[in-house]
Amino acid sequence: MTVRRRLRLGMVGGGQGAFIGAVHRMAARLDDKWELTAGVFQSDPKHSREFGRSLGLAEDRCYGDFADMASAEAKRTDRIDAVSIVTPNHLHVPVARVFVAAGLPVICDKPLGISAKDVKALSSAVRRAGIPFIVTHTYSGYPMVRQARAMIEAGELGKIRVVQVEYAQDWLANDLPENKQADWRGDPERAGPGGALGDIATHAFHLAEFVTGLKASALSADLSTFVEERKVDDNAHVMLRYVDGAKGMLWASQVAAGEANGLRLRIFGERAGLEWEQETPETLTITKLGHPAHILRRGGPGLSAAAIAATRLPAGHPEGYLEAFAQIYSDAAELIHAHLEVRAPEGFAALAPGVEDGVRGVQFIEAAIQSHAHNSAWTEIS
Amino acid sequence: MTVRRRLRLGMVGGGQGAFIGAVHRMAARLDDKWELTAGVFQSDPKHSREFGRSLGLAEDRCYGDFADMASAEAKRTDRIDAVSIVTPNHLHVPVARVFVAAGLPVICDKPLGISAKDVKALSSAVRRAGIPFIVTHTYSGYPMVRQARAMIEAGELGKIRVVQVEYAQDWLANDLPENKQADWRGDPERAGPGGALGDIATHAFHLAEFVTGLKASALSADLSTFVEERKVDDNAHVMLRYVDGAKGMLWASQVAAGEANGLRLRIFGERAGLEWEQETPETLTITKLGHPAHILRRGGPGLSAAAIAATRLPAGHPEGYLEAFAQIYSDAAELIHAHLEVRAPEGFAALAPGVEDGVRGVQFIEAAIQSHAHNSAWTEIS
Amino acid sequence: MTVRRRLRLGMVGGGQGAFIGAVHRMAARLDDKWELTAGVFQSDPKHSREFGRSLGLAEDRCYGDFADMASAEAKRTDRIDAVSIVTPNHLHVPVARVFVAAGLPVICDKPLGISAKDVKALSSAVRRAGIPFIVTHTYSGYPMVRQARAMIEAGELGKIRVVQVEYAQDWLANDLPENKQADWRGDPERAGPGGALGDIATHAFHLAEFVTGLKASALSADLSTFVEERKVDDNAHVMLRYVDGAKGMLWASQVAAGEANGLRLRIFGERAGLEWEQETPETLTITKLGHPAHILRRGGPGLSAAAIAATRLPAGHPEGYLEAFAQIYSDAAELIHAHLEVRAPEGFAALAPGVEDGVRGVQFIEAAIQSHAHNSAWTEIS
Amino acid sequence: MTVRRRLRLGMVGGGQGAFIGAVHRMAARLDDKWELTAGVFQSDPKHSREFGRSLGLAEDRCYGDFADMASAEAKRTDRIDAVSIVTPNHLHVPVARVFVAAGLPVICDKPLGISAKDVKALSSAVRRAGIPFIVTHTYSGYPMVRQARAMIEAGELGKIRVVQVEYAQDWLANDLPENKQADWRGDPERAGPGGALGDIATHAFHLAEFVTGLKASALSADLSTFVEERKVDDNAHVMLRYVDGAKGMLWASQVAAGEANGLRLRIFGERAGLEWEQETPETLTITKLGHPAHILRRGGPGLSAAAIAATRLPAGHPEGYLEAFAQIYSDAAELIHAHLEVRAPEGFAALAPGVEDGVRGVQFIEAAIQSHAHNSAWTEIS
Repeated sequence: MTVRRRLRLGMVGGGQGAFIGAVHRMAARLDDKWELTAGVFQSDPKHSREFGRSLGLAEDRCYGDFADMASAEAKRTDRIDAVSIVTPNHLHVPVARVFVAAGLPVICDKPLGISAKDVKALSSAVRRAGIPFIVTHTYSGYPMVRQARAMIEAGELGKIRVVQVEYAQDWLANDLPENKQADWRGDPERAGPGGALGDIATHAFHLAEFVTGLKASALSADLSTFVEERKVDDNAHVMLRYVDGAKGMLWASQVAAGEANGLRLRIFGERAGLEWEQETPETLTITKLGHPAHILRRGGPGLSAAAIAATRLPAGHPEGYLEAFAQIYSDAAELIHAHLEVRAPEGFAALAPGVEDGVRGVQFIEAAIQSHAHNSAWTEIS
Repeated sequence: MTVRRRLRLGMVGGGQGAFIGAVHRMAARLDDKWELTAGVFQSDPKHSREFGRSLGLAEDRCYGDFADMASAEAKRTDRIDAVSIVTPNHLHVPVARVFVAAGLPVICDKPLGISAKDVKALSSAVRRAGIPFIVTHTYSGYPMVRQARAMIEAGELGKIRVVQVEYAQDWLANDLPENKQADWRGDPERAGPGGALGDIATHAFHLAEFVTGLKASALSADLSTFVEERKVDDNAHVMLRYVDGAKGMLWASQVAAGEANGLRLRIFGERAGLEWEQETPETLTITKLGHPAHILRRGGPGLSAAAIAATRLPAGHPEGYLEAFAQIYSDAAELIHAHLEVRAPEGFAALAPGVEDGVRGVQFIEAAIQSHAHNSAWTEIS
Repeated sequence: MTVRRRLRLGMVGGGQGAFIGAVHRMAARLDDKWELTAGVFQSDPKHSREFGRSLGLAEDRCYGDFADMASAEAKRTDRIDAVSIVTPNHLHVPVARVFVAAGLPVICDKPLGISAKDVKALSSAVRRAGIPFIVTHTYSGYPMVRQARAMIEAGELGKIRVVQVEYAQDWLANDLPENKQADWRGDPERAGPGGALGDIATHAFHLAEFVTGLKASALSADLSTFVEERKVDDNAHVMLRYVDGAKGMLWASQVAAGEANGLRLRIFGERAGLEWEQETPETLTITKLGHPAHILRRGGPGLSAAAIAATRLPAGHPEGYLEAFAQIYSDAAELIHAHLEVRAPEGFAALAPGVEDGVRGVQFIEAAIQSHAHNSAWTEIS
Repeated sequence: MTVRRRLRLGMVGGGQGAFIGAVHRMAARLDDKWELTAGVFQSDPKHSREFGRSLGLAEDRCYGDFADMASAEAKRTDRIDAVSIVTPNHLHVPVARVFVAAGLPVICDKPLGISAKDVKALSSAVRRAGIPFIVTHTYSGYPMVRQARAMIEAGELGKIRVVQVEYAQDWLANDLPENKQADWRGDPERAGPGGALGDIATHAFHLAEFVTGLKASALSADLSTFVEERKVDDNAHVMLRYVDGAKGMLWASQVAAGEANGLRLRIFGERAGLEWEQETPETLTITKLGHPAHILRRGGPGLSAAAIAATRLPAGHPEGYLEAFAQIYSDAAELIHAHLEVRAPEGFAALAPGVEDGVRGVQFIEAAIQSHAHNSAWTEIS
């Protein structure tokens, strides 16, 4: 067992009251492969530095501005090994651009940006820089999601026919004028043009492509905004066509009373079907035609190497969202170690979603909005 | 308690090897309100009569032809009180027309027919005849479905926003050249133009309208035929728009490996959401925004009069498909008694689906086929 | 397919307001193998006859007294083929004795009686008379229960180690002075010495022996009466030792708030374990050591002949309690046809519980009461 | 928000290949309240130090012997704030005694020791030393377990009647001669006299007392050893009597084929019942008599302050075993901060199990063994 040094993590965003920043920090900590070292956490420089100190950062690693941080860190010999970008959506690309330009690897929240043009440009920059760039489509970090992917890749479902994916929540069923999380997500300037589309449908879209290994070629979308005051969609109905003949449906909703974080994926092939639900992530149901269903469980018998590599605890000791998120961070660590050591990444680190996955997500948002604007006409995703 | 005489039931179709005919007979028997009295069960007169005798029918009530049966029965003083039509789809209208013309009430399987024009004509004839006509959308007979309907009617969900309904099976995942059930269902001459559309999507479509009390005004459909040899659709993806702003999705599939009879309904209103699944029909999950989910169970506390009226056994003694089906037959019995006694039906018998529901189903099929033919263009249902 | 005549059923008990009588009648009707022909339904002869007429019985088959009924029926050429005894417990043996003496087969509710001495005498009488005698341990009629039994018999679980069975309800969590069902069940004169023990624990005890094929040799019991006014136990905790080294626990409760009819069985062998729950009776979970769990479903792939023979509908069309009950009646019909035709019963009719199972149940009750009286000392069941 | 310094954690045990040591370290890391600072991880001093270095410990904090560690640490100004003892059971007391004598707080795995006499002596020493001592009954750290406890404490279930608890696994269904975890657990010298009793039944026993707030006064036990080569019990059937009239059953098994880590608790009071299962820890089902069941979920509406305080993520983002474990570590941190600052602990830190809970566990083991030796005679737990 090679023991590698803990990597140094920088962070942009994720200050006081930001949900996802704290999650990134817990996820980075869990597997002990990262140490939070530097950051700019809030727009106000003074508050940002205070917050950094409260996290135990050294004084000179608490920055007031992300551009300063990028240039200062790039000059240090003990520079950060990557920066996590956990700001509202509209800042993802501007911030990422600066760190990429400084040659610093990036771990960026989704959606990658608010316009397909921007994210494609970013993607080119990343390619030219030749550095790791991870997009936190967290749900691809779950062991049983990776199990599903491995089984489809191995042909156990046969040719894929139908892909049903959905992501339903209810926290925006009413207008939430006082809620910080709701505030920027409902503002097209900061969230981008998609509401439920950007915040959750992109996860569902990625999950379906990740697990099936198929690309969606076109979509037909019917978007709704049920809460009157809202400026973006809060419910998206989408029909999908995948290359190679598979058909799909995607439903994303933030107004589905009773749903908390209901991401569910069902895939049906010529030989078998599978089902996975994020709220009970430990099991994966597989049914081969003509056989009883069987229930694969994390840590249990019959799993692929990819699933086993993403697990920490024995079966029956529930893992959850943080472990899935930690997996992405551990994959990122391996990608960066490999980059530093100029070698191929070990294990299954390459499963971590990258900049191209981020581009797909933004293209999906734009296609859905365009389809909706044309009375749900079938629209290419590209 | 008024005890009413057992009604006399005739049957057309449902001979040797026909699944649904036997189900109709068990359902009619369960609540002891019907006695099978006459029938023509198969196209071959000799086999038909033999089959009738094996069911214990009197010799003179075993017919060789449905038109003979209608005219002979109409002349008897102990004539049948209704006829059940359980033939392949293409015969529903021709048979029903004859019995309606003879003044005999009808209980007809779905879809009501194979063209909207025909079923509209039938509907007019029924209206003119002024007789009961029931369409066996079985699933509306489940107590917890009626509970869902009653709660929405009472406003407990608030204004409806989103309706997700699906009906997934896998028995046609492969070509079944030897299967009698599959045979006629795959033949447009006998099944009509819809495959999964006619056989199962119509149930899902009816269920959604039945429970919400909303009419779907338009749809956008993407139909597929995954099994090469098949002449009709085996998977239907449909987006729906309901009057009054609600949006819906309907998925019907006969190739969904692992699914047996997966009819599921989820409805989300401004104040609450609900979920019901046919394979576990005893419970209904209700979640009011800001409250924990609660699980209503058949026979348990907190139910509406409509649900209570449709239940036979105490909670925890599972009822199922046959009881739901029996409920439709018991409702039909009450509709017919009321008709004979020239009074309004008692209880909740009027919940039984009627000829207009049958018409809606065929209109839905036609709209879906038309939409699909026009690249999923939004198409009115009428 | 041999079509056999419908058998004529007599009934003792089950008049107005009696839950289980109506259930027996529905169960007898479902498979069309029985026709209710005669009966004495209530203790008052006038009400009894009225009730019989309301069920459509002929005038001369409506009796006022069970002894009269037995002697009158025995003299008829169109005599009843069996009598169902659905009275309170204390009448089971007196009524059964009379019909057995008259040579008439019996279908009797459980527990078979209120003293082991009595039921053993009855059992001897039945043996001497050589007639079919069925005890309605309904739950053994479920297809997936029979599947479980078949798998254990075939050795798929290996040697049985642990048997966990429970039957939990909450309908007697409070005193119910006005409830007719509760009334006699709480009266040791009519119910016998066991409360929960007799009413539900006997079902659980039978189920465990039925499925495992093992006899319980001894028990240690701790009985409770939580509702102050009650004269019999309403909660029973029992440890069991089976012949051949298996160990078990049995819990029966009528005060388990939240439980409706929670009969659950889990069995663990050297090679595999299984789980079945009566409230979701359509599935049976099997887990072989070192393999993922698989879920067998009624009507689905991978089932034994015994399970298939007890099923009416395709998978996904839920069957329930009435079908399980109907199975016992259909088995009884076959046992009686075989008896009349002096041949061995066909299929799996011999799985129907008989008088010896009834004796075991009463022995179990007496052993539990004796153990409890001796501070839970281990007590033989015999 | 007061930000307190990270506490310094020492560890005894948990070296290469030890499951629970790694879990303790992840749990300690998750909430960022602890920093692993010192340790002796294996019996061989050289390997122990190597392992410590591989975890990133400073050279002088990698010890070869626990007594040296205790005395060396006690002398430092930057001494560890607590030691985690994660050795096999027989070392818990000897190690704890030394650290307690050195005035260093202890976090100890369960069971606390291998004889009731020893753990009572330890408990006295802890009381005299006046220092925090936490026993890692992990499952009491789950938010929904704390919710259950809070509801019972608030009287929502009424007087408790029945407590059904079980803990079932299958990993020891066969002899595992090569398995390091199985090895010491099957050796009475190192594991103590209980097998399943010590390893898992103690958790179940604690959980029931923790949630109900009731003490079990006596038990009747039937222990089994199904795997021939084994020297300790692998299945325990226990009946319990609680003070104040409640009755209980406890089942613990390591040979229950199909069970991974099936800890389940059901509690029934005069007014309501509840159910919680460790493998799906995010929900708690509550049923009030006469009302539909409701499903409380972590992060959702309707929760107590105690549950809310133990949660990290929004509803629907599954938390699991590590978060429950982390909660015990965070509680421990607060108990130690409070101890250092000579103040009462804030929040719900006092819910963390302490040395007395550890004593109860060992008394339970001894009572069960004694009862079993006396043919399941009722035996006091003290």
